[in-house]
Amino acid sequence: MAYETILYEVDGPVLTITLNRPEKLNAYTGVMGAELTDAFERADQDDAVRVVIVTGAGRGFCAGADISGGADAFDTKAEGSVAFAAPGQPRKAGGGFVEAIFNCRKPSIAAINGAAVGVGATLTLPMDIRLAAKTAKIGFIFARRGLVPEAGSAWFLPKLVGLPRALRWCMTGAMVSAEEAREAELISEVVEPERLLARAREIAMEIAENTAPVSVALARQMLWRFAGAPDPSGLLAIDGRLSMELGAGPDVKEGVGAFLEKRPPRFPGRVSQDMPSLYPWWDEAG
Amino acid sequence: MAYETILYEVDGPVLTITLNRPEKLNAYTGVMGAELTDAFERADQDDAVRVVIVTGAGRGFCAGADISGGADAFDTKAEGSVAFAAPGQPRKAGGGFVEAIFNCRKPSIAAINGAAVGVGATLTLPMDIRLAAKTAKIGFIFARRGLVPEAGSAWFLPKLVGLPRALRWCMTGAMVSAEEAREAELISEVVEPERLLARAREIAMEIAENTAPVSVALARQMLWRFAGAPDPSGLLAIDGRLSMELGAGPDVKEGVGAFLEKRPPRFPGRVSQDMPSLYPWWDEAG
Amino acid sequence: MAYETILYEVDGPVLTITLNRPEKLNAYTGVMGAELTDAFERADQDDAVRVVIVTGAGRGFCAGADISGGADAFDTKAEGSVAFAAPGQPRKAGGGFVEAIFNCRKPSIAAINGAAVGVGATLTLPMDIRLAAKTAKIGFIFARRGLVPEAGSAWFLPKLVGLPRALRWCMTGAMVSAEEAREAELISEVVEPERLLARAREIAMEIAENTAPVSVALARQMLWRFAGAPDPSGLLAIDGRLSMELGAGPDVKEGVGAFLEKRPPRFPGRVSQDMPSLYPWWDEAG
Repeated sequence: MAYETILYEVDGPVLTITLNRPEKLNAYTGVMGAELTDAFERADQDDAVRVVIVTGAGRGFCAGADISGGADAFDTKAEGSVAFAAPGQPRKAGGGFVEAIFNCRKPSIAAINGAAVGVGATLTLPMDIRLAAKTAKIGFIFARRGLVPEAGSAWFLPKLVGLPRALRWCMTGAMVSAEEAREAELISEVVEPERLLARAREIAMEIAENTAPVSVALARQMLWRFAGAPDPSGLLAIDGRLSMELGAGPDVKEGVGAFLEKRPPRFPGRVSQDMPSLYPWWDEAG
Repeated sequence: MAYETILYEVDGPVLTITLNRPEKLNAYTGVMGAELTDAFERADQDDAVRVVIVTGAGRGFCAGADISGGADAFDTKAEGSVAFAAPGQPRKAGGGFVEAIFNCRKPSIAAINGAAVGVGATLTLPMDIRLAAKTAKIGFIFARRGLVPEAGSAWFLPKLVGLPRALRWCMTGAMVSAEEAREAELISEVVEPERLLARAREIAMEIAENTAPVSVALARQMLWRFAGAPDPSGLLAIDGRLSMELGAGPDVKEGVGAFLEKRPPRFPGRVSQDMPSLYPWWDEAG
Repeated sequence: MAYETILYEVDGPVLTITLNRPEKLNAYTGVMGAELTDAFERADQDDAVRVVIVTGAGRGFCAGADISGGADAFDTKAEGSVAFAAPGQPRKAGGGFVEAIFNCRKPSIAAINGAAVGVGATLTLPMDIRLAAKTAKIGFIFARRGLVPEAGSAWFLPKLVGLPRALRWCMTGAMVSAEEAREAELISEVVEPERLLARAREIAMEIAENTAPVSVALARQMLWRFAGAPDPSGLLAIDGRLSMELGAGPDVKEGVGAFLEKRPPRFPGRVSQDMPSLYPWWDEAG
């Protein structure tokens, strides 16, 4: 699949996806949603990719849905609606990209280089780490357009920033500075714009060089899928079994061995074929 | 309904409810609970009201349940129990006000002007934004009286401040300063006492002037009702449908139009009759 | 039961459990897990114990699972696996200690005096308050050993520090300073090493001297068990009933009486026999 609206570049263990409509501040279209989905599904399958970075070309990150079509932009029956991946081909609810990012066996880092507005903000929420350039701004502006938080963001946002901020940001629809987003822990670090990608890459390499791919893929799913569970019983029913299966396998022997020998680990397990038998446990439950 | 224990004052798009037993530091009674419930249900129906502010008359916000009846105050079989809305008429569990505030289609702001203790603290939790005067104190003091956190506060409090603070505050039962409550994000801003109502009103007007009433009513419910969901699937099943229905409607055309024309929006949708067909979705699920 | 790997010391209303394998930095073994479980079950039954403090002997808190057996340490079929409470006697998933701490009717305080790594970090999560010495470090290092977060920590950790930190810590597997853990609210206070136990004891005494044992036992369970509920309805169905039953009982009469008379309370209720009829409500639901 050749992409029209994004770049897909693999360098060592790191895939960088660049939203690439700089003349429109990378405004979101149905095509972009479909391409993001495809890119994350591809990364999920590719053992060479350990971490995914998502950033924007030019001075914006993603200015929100492309409303250059005018006031009908959100009317799915109108021409030029952003709801279409291709003429006549409706995008899935939430764009499909939410599930693709959420289910991906690789962690992802949003490197927010400029304005991230509406869907441009919500598409970063299922990612695991968000960095921002000092100059970036973030806006959950839905109520100012007559819309509601989309793409699962009413679930993701309070999980990440807590309910008080999520309510305040969504009730007022106001734009939020990178610094306020960092206080809210939506953003883990605010950096100089020219340092942004280098810093994202440092974190990606810290993960790639020190951790077992299978462990990271499992930990992502365990955290995202049990953080919201009403009690720990469902998790306790699987984490002991996972630990036992992994404990008898080659990654743990390498991890413990490398630690005892004080050398970097070289984990043999690949997510394409070495996930434990319990994975994915959430299909089990139906 | 004429109120005995609260004031109900509408000024432009803002309703201010004042707890009004200043000689008792606005101590809570069953009558006050019933009146608060009625006031929020009334505000819910009234399209002229966009935002509700709740504050206290005099130097207290609400000193907790009125225990001037003595050690029998919490014994529902005793005379003078705070559990009665009127003689012989038991109040609902949680006072009914929790559900009335939680279900209200208008966001609410607590302007905590002084001590908020016990039920005086818990009644602010289902509200969306809490401001406090520098001099205010907040206390989840239940364990010091032999009681337990009431009115749903064991659910609300950790949702707002996280479990570590909620546990600490409820295990010790200690009073908390406005500043500590702000660090915990229970309070979004601490202001000089004389600025408190003006600042609450500024935030209310920011919401009223910039956002669509239907969007705000929906966003409130989406955040409160899905923040605690185990996973985003339930939300993803409705947020796309809500976006589609709203996207074809007049509020979005006005919101996008106003944005493109760089003018303030005038949203036509009214919560009394223009909520989307999916609302309330939680009745659907039973 | 005589303990091999821990100390169990009661002083007034405070039990101090000391992880006691200082020559191994208190590395965790199956025996230690079983002894911790027993100690918390004993404290649960003993009305003389109001609060439990857990700390480590020597310069470490708990350096993680004892891997002195080498790369087979986590292989439950191998000799010297940490998975055995005693030869041939497998420990329960999560060590059993998670449930013992979680279900205990006494609040617990971790006084983290040094490195808390892997299971040494996760065993503090079901406790209610965590203090750390300045020099302490905490590491959810599972992904660096080829393992996954264990003992329910994928549920506990994001409940305590939020998802952004939990993801970052578990994706990188990096060690975290006491100060960063405090910013994340995992640790409520960082103190000088020599002040650590005294400060833990101060907090324990604040609880013991001011609160009703039954109230604290109930509040712990209400917070831990409803913080993750999807909505407040389940809690509202019980907190009113609990308040009514307690309200007619002797602890509330004492708590209100002591408050009105401005004297310290002496609560008569004992958790061994005076828990309200609704407790434990989670058995009701099955």
